[in-house]
Amino acid sequence: MSLPKRMRAAVLYDYNDLRVVDRDVPAPGEQEVLIQVKACAICGSDPKIVAHGWPSCPPMGEYIPGHEFSGVIAAVGSGVTGYRAGERVAVEPHKGCGHCINCIRGLYTTCLNYGKLEEGHRHYGFTVNGGYAEYAVCHINCIHKFSETLSYEDATLLTTAGTALYGIQRAGGIWPGETVVVIGPGPIGLMAVQLAKVLGAGRVILVGTRESRLATGKEVGADITVNSRETDAVQAISELTGGVMADMVVETSGSTGGGAQAVELVKKSGRVAFVGIYSEPVTLNLNKVVQWNVQLAGGKAEGEDVLDRIVPLMESGRIKTKPLLTHEFSLEQINEGMNTYINRVGNALKVVIKP
Amino acid sequence: MSLPKRMRAAVLYDYNDLRVVDRDVPAPGEQEVLIQVKACAICGSDPKIVAHGWPSCPPMGEYIPGHEFSGVIAAVGSGVTGYRAGERVAVEPHKGCGHCINCIRGLYTTCLNYGKLEEGHRHYGFTVNGGYAEYAVCHINCIHKFSETLSYEDATLLTTAGTALYGIQRAGGIWPGETVVVIGPGPIGLMAVQLAKVLGAGRVILVGTRESRLATGKEVGADITVNSRETDAVQAISELTGGVMADMVVETSGSTGGGAQAVELVKKSGRVAFVGIYSEPVTLNLNKVVQWNVQLAGGKAEGEDVLDRIVPLMESGRIKTKPLLTHEFSLEQINEGMNTYINRVGNALKVVIKP
Amino acid sequence: MSLPKRMRAAVLYDYNDLRVVDRDVPAPGEQEVLIQVKACAICGSDPKIVAHGWPSCPPMGEYIPGHEFSGVIAAVGSGVTGYRAGERVAVEPHKGCGHCINCIRGLYTTCLNYGKLEEGHRHYGFTVNGGYAEYAVCHINCIHKFSETLSYEDATLLTTAGTALYGIQRAGGIWPGETVVVIGPGPIGLMAVQLAKVLGAGRVILVGTRESRLATGKEVGADITVNSRETDAVQAISELTGGVMADMVVETSGSTGGGAQAVELVKKSGRVAFVGIYSEPVTLNLNKVVQWNVQLAGGKAEGEDVLDRIVPLMESGRIKTKPLLTHEFSLEQINEGMNTYINRVGNALKVVIKP
Amino acid sequence: MSLPKRMRAAVLYDYNDLRVVDRDVPAPGEQEVLIQVKACAICGSDPKIVAHGWPSCPPMGEYIPGHEFSGVIAAVGSGVTGYRAGERVAVEPHKGCGHCINCIRGLYTTCLNYGKLEEGHRHYGFTVNGGYAEYAVCHINCIHKFSETLSYEDATLLTTAGTALYGIQRAGGIWPGETVVVIGPGPIGLMAVQLAKVLGAGRVILVGTRESRLATGKEVGADITVNSRETDAVQAISELTGGVMADMVVETSGSTGGGAQAVELVKKSGRVAFVGIYSEPVTLNLNKVVQWNVQLAGGKAEGEDVLDRIVPLMESGRIKTKPLLTHEFSLEQINEGMNTYINRVGNALKVVIKP
Repeated sequence: MSLPKRMRAAVLYDYNDLRVVDRDVPAPGEQEVLIQVKACAICGSDPKIVAHGWPSCPPMGEYIPGHEFSGVIAAVGSGVTGYRAGERVAVEPHKGCGHCINCIRGLYTTCLNYGKLEEGHRHYGFTVNGGYAEYAVCHINCIHKFSETLSYEDATLLTTAGTALYGIQRAGGIWPGETVVVIGPGPIGLMAVQLAKVLGAGRVILVGTRESRLATGKEVGADITVNSRETDAVQAISELTGGVMADMVVETSGSTGGGAQAVELVKKSGRVAFVGIYSEPVTLNLNKVVQWNVQLAGGKAEGEDVLDRIVPLMESGRIKTKPLLTHEFSLEQINEGMNTYINRVGNALKVVIKP
Repeated sequence: MSLPKRMRAAVLYDYNDLRVVDRDVPAPGEQEVLIQVKACAICGSDPKIVAHGWPSCPPMGEYIPGHEFSGVIAAVGSGVTGYRAGERVAVEPHKGCGHCINCIRGLYTTCLNYGKLEEGHRHYGFTVNGGYAEYAVCHINCIHKFSETLSYEDATLLTTAGTALYGIQRAGGIWPGETVVVIGPGPIGLMAVQLAKVLGAGRVILVGTRESRLATGKEVGADITVNSRETDAVQAISELTGGVMADMVVETSGSTGGGAQAVELVKKSGRVAFVGIYSEPVTLNLNKVVQWNVQLAGGKAEGEDVLDRIVPLMESGRIKTKPLLTHEFSLEQINEGMNTYINRVGNALKVVIKP
Repeated sequence: MSLPKRMRAAVLYDYNDLRVVDRDVPAPGEQEVLIQVKACAICGSDPKIVAHGWPSCPPMGEYIPGHEFSGVIAAVGSGVTGYRAGERVAVEPHKGCGHCINCIRGLYTTCLNYGKLEEGHRHYGFTVNGGYAEYAVCHINCIHKFSETLSYEDATLLTTAGTALYGIQRAGGIWPGETVVVIGPGPIGLMAVQLAKVLGAGRVILVGTRESRLATGKEVGADITVNSRETDAVQAISELTGGVMADMVVETSGSTGGGAQAVELVKKSGRVAFVGIYSEPVTLNLNKVVQWNVQLAGGKAEGEDVLDRIVPLMESGRIKTKPLLTHEFSLEQINEGMNTYINRVGNALKVVIKP
Repeated sequence: MSLPKRMRAAVLYDYNDLRVVDRDVPAPGEQEVLIQVKACAICGSDPKIVAHGWPSCPPMGEYIPGHEFSGVIAAVGSGVTGYRAGERVAVEPHKGCGHCINCIRGLYTTCLNYGKLEEGHRHYGFTVNGGYAEYAVCHINCIHKFSETLSYEDATLLTTAGTALYGIQRAGGIWPGETVVVIGPGPIGLMAVQLAKVLGAGRVILVGTRESRLATGKEVGADITVNSRETDAVQAISELTGGVMADMVVETSGSTGGGAQAVELVKKSGRVAFVGIYSEPVTLNLNKVVQWNVQLAGGKAEGEDVLDRIVPLMESGRIKTKPLLTHEFSLEQINEGMNTYINRVGNALKVVIKP
């Protein structure tokens, strides 16, 4: 494959000024590959990045966001033995420094050298350039092969599913037969519903406020949906469980109400996984946490190589992607894509940019 | 040992009306023992019980509170094979129903039949009579033998230490060499300091507001104390850890400030154990919980038989009791004892009633 | 429901002398129910019991074996609040004493008072009478309700599945996407195959020696089967995994060869669950266990209330029973049933006795 | 510090032909430091290496063994920010490739690219040169700073202690108050005794055959020692525990007898950590493993950064080194040192070479 010298890329020139322009195709360094990006999904953090930047991000005028992407390997750097050009790969955005105590113990999404390029840390699309471009470089620790049973668009959802799974793992997992409540029918919530089923949950209850998304929840496997605008969720779960409440609650809404409700919905000695983005502090019933012996955990992104766990599930059809992939735009239309995502135009769930 | 028919007991006649009166000595039932109470410590929940009662408590005029007690077995009921009169035992107050799914899995402090006597649940000093009396009956699941190396007063602190340990266990334990912060230098906090050391912590930092209690913390093994009235605790822990913060935070203060601060003091991928009694909801930085991959747990009392873990530690002197045992009163003086405890007269930490 | 006074029961009169005779219908005691037995499956331990008895079993001439049974509640004893006559229930055979340190911590299948009736321990069909009879008494800790979506024959397999699941739990569980090898395509192995899938395994490989059983393995969800008479299993798994070997191995054969092979088939830092009955010591490559950082666990029966996890899986059809239920006999034909099971007449897998 | 060009080093020229010769001082590469070696202890694997080499070791005539070493940083390579010349550091010998799935999850002592230098894997003293020399290079992932409270000789024992701790961790840890049996009073066993205490064990029982080493066990904290030449260890532990046996057994002897005995000494639902080097297969009572619900684990070396846990324990004197450090030799005397270690001349425990 002969590589072009120049490529199209969406570059952030200033807050709220994202432009598609020409750039040099980057060269892969040691243990890096060059990926020809085929699909890059818009994540909830992307509009915030466009609006406000990100701590330690590249300079305005150089910064290419985008971190949920997949493509085909176009070239490999030095020291790369396990990958070759032509292979289909998806990217997980976090690459730890590799030598802090968290990285050494496998907790690289909480690398103690976050944002320090000189220490080897990379957060693709955040602290270094990402996937809203025709080409992107990526370290081999962050790429995952997938077969032709998955499209490139499907593969952009590996990170979404991985975030849900990692939160569940950190909170102690889900055991067969358990009753699981998922709060928030956004992309992560819809993946959490499916993962709960994959892990053997007996009953999965999805709580949300939009009927269209709850309907998608049913489509991907939720046994019961609760519209919390119409029904008191605490009372509903109480009735469904004979007052015992849920073994596990996965809170994905990121709202203060959802965060607080998660604790109200869990059973004695139950577990709560928080995987939302909370823009405000959340007031919790900490007395219940103690008196009911509750375990809680926040899950930072797709850690401990969970994508390797998700790939076979998605390839075998146990994790569905189609109902989440509602919109596609070309790279040139990225700002229209952002707008569609932000304003949920046409009930947008996941919007994929295709460079 | 010939048993008397009548005994002295502190009976709650009405809210804030605790009287020492004569009562029949109770008879032990199946798998129960009768304990001649030698010492019963005042717990933080006791003044609240005296003031407001407790859900499912015995009727006013019959209710004998007190749940941190020890004594000598005076008689055994039917079906008791492992205990005999004359043995020294300490009591843990929770006895699960034994047949709900939580009890079957060992999580009896969160029995799903809490307060239901007909199901076999007992919470001594709360839902059934307790230890502010010359005699008390107790199920064999709730008693723990201890040797003469411990006094009866020492043994009243087994539950205090057990509560700290169970919270630590639920939050994932403490591993050797770790930096542990304990918030709140009350009795549970002072036990948490010692347990952190017993579990191998490298450095234990005690945060509080009263110099006398912080000094007691030093006496029982805290490496560093931080007076949060004088010093910003977040900044102090940051400086002590090179900005990394603590591997584990044990929050025992029960204050809204302490609860919130616990999350601020923990490191990336660290753990927080909550073992305070929170009378109000607590506003937490849930965004940090997620972004820093934090695990948290509430610990409900002294579950999973932790007292069996504590007895050898206390007998061998690795858990100290003396600095905590500040005051003693006779049963007849119980209201004076309560007053001493509530108002921290003479820097009271633990006040023991001796029937 | 009016109860008969007498019932038919299979009583062991002497080693290898099992007779179907008349007996009094037993009366349920405190926290016990009387079950009208509808189905009782033959377990691998039953022929051994018939041939040799069991430590602490009832006296010859009184002993009714049988421990994988289900039926309908005919009467309830005192103190039973959660069950009533007419309900369909399955039995798990272990009831711990409830007060030893293992029982208190939820580890009742390893009760320290095993076989001591006076301490409250019961092992139905082993140390007390079981289910090869028209009626049997059982403690409420050992019964599990199931809906009409399951037949009584189906429900006899709850314990079989529970044993597989508990072994998997003790060995650290199975995580999504993992490669799992199950050794031994008997009833427990065929349940392990299904549970691995339920827990999200990416690929399940069943190793055995009988083609008919391997075919049943495929029918219940094994992705790949390896006939170890024809193929070297170590080499086969090595090829299937690029030399990495399996994340988890579940050894159910109980043979010395299977026990040893389990260690050979696991990957670096992988896990092995042993749930077979080993009649001889097994020689293992312990050097590999150390050098490859392997975790192993034996699973004792269906502990920690795993049946509550299995019921919803079986009710929803995620655990299949039909391919395992090959033969049925009436209670009067029990010796013919035993013979069919022992000699695998007609490729017998599970043989169910229907009183 | 001006560096010399040449250094003295012990080079393996052929099996059983270890010569101290002149070599070039190596240069540190990226993320590597050059260490001036002050002390390098002889490990049980070293005599085997001298006699037989090691898979993937450097060529005869170039290979410098030695992997338990400490010293002072003499120079730093490129990309090293956290270390500088003059700092005291100890080495852990395993450096994973950093990009296989085990390394990414923190399991680098079981790196899937063991021995592949081109993938970035290093095993100092095994697959690349080690510490029997005046200078050695080492990756920053493998070095641990220590204060002046520790001597360089002390610091050579960090790996020994780390191996014991990692095995204990992998087998589920030790909880306060537990009864722990350590089999084998060699250096790892004597560290396991101390770590059991540090983790809160109630009682530590050391089993061995040599009185002098058992006496050292007492000196470092064993509560009870059992000479298994004179006493049947199974019976002794049974008597000490009222027939219950040990919560945890740490087997460090590496003998077939020790390996088998570990399973015999553990209680129902107890744990066994294997950290010996087993030169032959071991025949275990696997039936007990299943029937008693036992968990076992092999621990591969000092994984998951356990040295960071050990350093503060050793610095604070909770892990003692002096009783283990029996002999010292200069680098020129290395063959005499080996002989002393192999033949346990003068009851040698740890023999330290001082370049």
